Amino acid sequence: MEWSRELRYKPYADWGAKTLLDLQAQAACSDYKLGYHIMPTSGLLNDPNGFSYYNGYWHVFYQSYPFGPVHGLKSWNHMRSKNLVHWENLGIGLNPDFEYDKNGAYSGSALQVGNKLFIMYNGNSRDENWVRHPYQLGAWMDENNRIEKLPEPLITQPDHITEHFRDPQIIKHKDEYYAIIGAQDATQKDGRISIYRSKDLKNFEDLGYLHFTDENMGYMIECPSLVFINDKPVLIFCPQGMDKNICSYDNIYPNNYIIGDSVNLDAGRFEASDKTIKNLDEGFDVYASQAFNAPDGKTYLISWTGLPEIEYPTDKENWAHCLSQVKELLLTDKGELIQRPVKAMADLRYDGLPLTQEQGMDHIQNLVSDTGSQYELKLTLDANQKGILHLEKNGLNNQSLKLVFDTEEGSLTLDRGNSGKVFATEFGTKRTTLVAKNAPIELDIFVDNSICEIFINGGKKTMTARFFPEKGQKSIVIESQSDVKYRGTFWKMQSI
Amino acid sequence: MEWSRELRYKPYADWGAKTLLDLQAQAACSDYKLGYHIMPTSGLLNDPNGFSYYNGYWHVFYQSYPFGPVHGLKSWNHMRSKNLVHWENLGIGLNPDFEYDKNGAYSGSALQVGNKLFIMYNGNSRDENWVRHPYQLGAWMDENNRIEKLPEPLITQPDHITEHFRDPQIIKHKDEYYAIIGAQDATQKDGRISIYRSKDLKNFEDLGYLHFTDENMGYMIECPSLVFINDKPVLIFCPQGMDKNICSYDNIYPNNYIIGDSVNLDAGRFEASDKTIKNLDEGFDVYASQAFNAPDGKTYLISWTGLPEIEYPTDKENWAHCLSQVKELLLTDKGELIQRPVKAMADLRYDGLPLTQEQGMDHIQNLVSDTGSQYELKLTLDANQKGILHLEKNGLNNQSLKLVFDTEEGSLTLDRGNSGKVFATEFGTKRTTLVAKNAPIELDIFVDNSICEIFINGGKKTMTARFFPEKGQKSIVIESQSDVKYRGTFWKMQSI
Repeated sequence: MEWSRELRYKPYADWGAKTLLDLQAQAACSDYKLGYHIMPTSGLLNDPNGFSYYNGYWHVFYQSYPFGPVHGLKSWNHMRSKNLVHWENLGIGLNPDFEYDKNGAYSGSALQVGNKLFIMYNGNSRDENWVRHPYQLGAWMDENNRIEKLPEPLITQPDHITEHFRDPQIIKHKDEYYAIIGAQDATQKDGRISIYRSKDLKNFEDLGYLHFTDENMGYMIECPSLVFINDKPVLIFCPQGMDKNICSYDNIYPNNYIIGDSVNLDAGRFEASDKTIKNLDEGFDVYASQAFNAPDGKTYLISWTGLPEIEYPTDKENWAHCLSQVKELLLTDKGELIQRPVKAMADLRYDGLPLTQEQGMDHIQNLVSDTGSQYELKLTLDANQKGILHLEKNGLNNQSLKLVFDTEEGSLTLDRGNSGKVFATEFGTKRTTLVAKNAPIELDIFVDNSICEIFINGGKKTMTARFFPEKGQKSIVIESQSDVKYRGTFWKMQSI
Repeated sequence: MEWSRELRYKPYADWGAKTLLDLQAQAACSDYKLGYHIMPTSGLLNDPNGFSYYNGYWHVFYQSYPFGPVHGLKSWNHMRSKNLVHWENLGIGLNPDFEYDKNGAYSGSALQVGNKLFIMYNGNSRDENWVRHPYQLGAWMDENNRIEKLPEPLITQPDHITEHFRDPQIIKHKDEYYAIIGAQDATQKDGRISIYRSKDLKNFEDLGYLHFTDENMGYMIECPSLVFINDKPVLIFCPQGMDKNICSYDNIYPNNYIIGDSVNLDAGRFEASDKTIKNLDEGFDVYASQAFNAPDGKTYLISWTGLPEIEYPTDKENWAHCLSQVKELLLTDKGELIQRPVKAMADLRYDGLPLTQEQGMDHIQNLVSDTGSQYELKLTLDANQKGILHLEKNGLNNQSLKLVFDTEEGSLTLDRGNSGKVFATEFGTKRTTLVAKNAPIELDIFVDNSICEIFINGGKKTMTARFFPEKGQKSIVIESQSDVKYRGTFWKMQSI
């Protein structure tokens, strides 16, 4: 199928229902279908949007193109949950159905205001010459999940920003509303974060850019997310084209963060004594993360587990990508960012199996022989050991997702190069992260069919990978020159 | 919307995808959406089909019309499960897409044969004069859930049967295959069960009718299901137009069963020393039940929880009906049929609450004050007491689903007349069943948003009701002239 521009932007109403039902059946039958992650019922999923708490439910929407594994005409698909783990699919929330979003209801955010949920999002509207006009739009959702769009844009493109002006995050800060928006400067053609202020969510005042680094962030910044943890501002963002000397990365685009000491949005100042820009995830597929400060006092993060401009094996099945599990964000006393699973994830566990040390044969220790395709593995590896933890190894011992560990030098390498169907090899098949030397490593590993999420040392680092195992890849094995000392627990995980 | 014949039989390919997405969103947002029962993602669900075990999964399909709450062009929608409780939706299984089923892939059954699943179903095909030609069709499903139809009918309409010839059940019995088919006799115009025999699932021999009663079963028998429990044949069926003196019923059509001593299918004889025809369910909404003998040695039943020719409140939301929970069928030593929840239903329980006897005030005992909308209630009421168990009672005390009990006379009356939105009132709003006099009653009650399923005295009787509570109906209360003695447990129930 040739995905011409015309086809990608064909109105939803012009697609046949039979096509959609067949696509849904195809996704539902996929061997790579996820059990406890949000995936599309058909077509392509990308950025999480409108992650919020309202009317007794957690809400998250995702960017959706239901008719194929391509970036076509986008809508928002609505999911809600009581516990951040079990999600209900409420179907399309925002349709691309009026002048200002006719080429896509693009990414945005949501915030409870009064007894309604205020939604701010980017309307993609192309003119007859296919020139993009980005509009920051507003909508209100009521308790019956009905969404009413505001008829006119809240913010139109200012002179100092190019057509790349999107992903508004609406927050309330010091009794004012602020919109934090990804932008490309019209003169410098570099990536910026734009700030607007509003008292009434009707009139928005342009405050210019947020200065948070002296480095050049490349040609565009997408998906800015500003949250406050222990009163410290944490800015999460996706720079495109950033020099790898600023922060090393191997993915096509990274997802970064910086921790500040304070922020003055009116003055456009994000003050950070440590100006280091860090990777949010040390793996392969985390992008467009969205975080927010929830009414329960906690800070939650959810990510698109997928990257732009890369083909994935399920494209052939006409669906693509998923969302990450929700993670809670914390700061340690030393100011390090911690990501950890939310509490209700533990409710999915069953058939817990304590992993007891066993003597290996031929440098192989078998931890679990039949994992099934959904599990959690908590594993502590003692200090000063080297080896390979094979996840989803097959019987022939020639396919597995490998985690190469060295607790002497303090390094972990996630290698998906021989883990089933390979893809995105042009960006490398290994990712390495460094941890403390001569120290044990604590791993909390979640596998769900075709995604692996690893929390390292209580969430100080995370490594995420989509991978596409062949049938028969079902065991967990440690391979090493000598028996490795470990302790841990394995659980199977229910579907949501 | 006027549901003309033309509209109801419009091919799926001619419906717009936007319409379907909107319908799916509407069903997903419904206040009456089920949490742990199979419901349609949009449109109408009716008979369970192809209930079977194959390739490590339980399978059930349902009759589906995705575009509205009407009996339009039907397909089979495929669900599968590892435990008969958590179901995965695999989308359309059988499409009405060739000459012999072009007006609907109607009901049928499935049976593992070799390493595939054999499907036998009724193809509804109308000619240019809108005369129905019923074909009994075959198809094979492989391990990838791909279904291939046989190009020619297995059985065409014989001279002695009218166009009402449908719902084939394929079973293996004494090394032969038999198809048990609902039929209307061409001469008498009365309801019959037709039998065909086959050695190879290609050639089917007409054995005439199965004689199981001397009574007249009305003008048609739908959905025959023959199972064997402790080697005794149990025949489950849906007679239409049966005289109420044969077996009293209040629903538009009943769903009945008869227990035999032996059956000789070749001779068309179902021998029963007790010829009583009984109701499978003493409530409101059970029809088109399908049972089968599973490879685990047990017998399972699943029902359409809905009835033909009746409007339900969710019709306005463009979706209708659900399937019952799966029930295990057993026979007691005395030969009584028992229906009981399957084992994995207990895995859905959480927040268990022992119900301790409390003194009532003003003849009111409050058992649970905030039930939520999904729960199980096990309750034993002592002998010789009278009162009303109010399920889903509201704060104003003027709405509830009532179970009126008299453990002196041994009667239970389920009254949905004032339980929220009322419907089907032309068939009465109460159903009564008799149990042992001067004896305690054991109840196991499952409520899931808009369905209530009651198992009485270990499943000797069941009473099922769809009901549509208003917001705020959330408490369980016993009302009586004096304090009622009870003991029990309440659990909230997870969604599947």
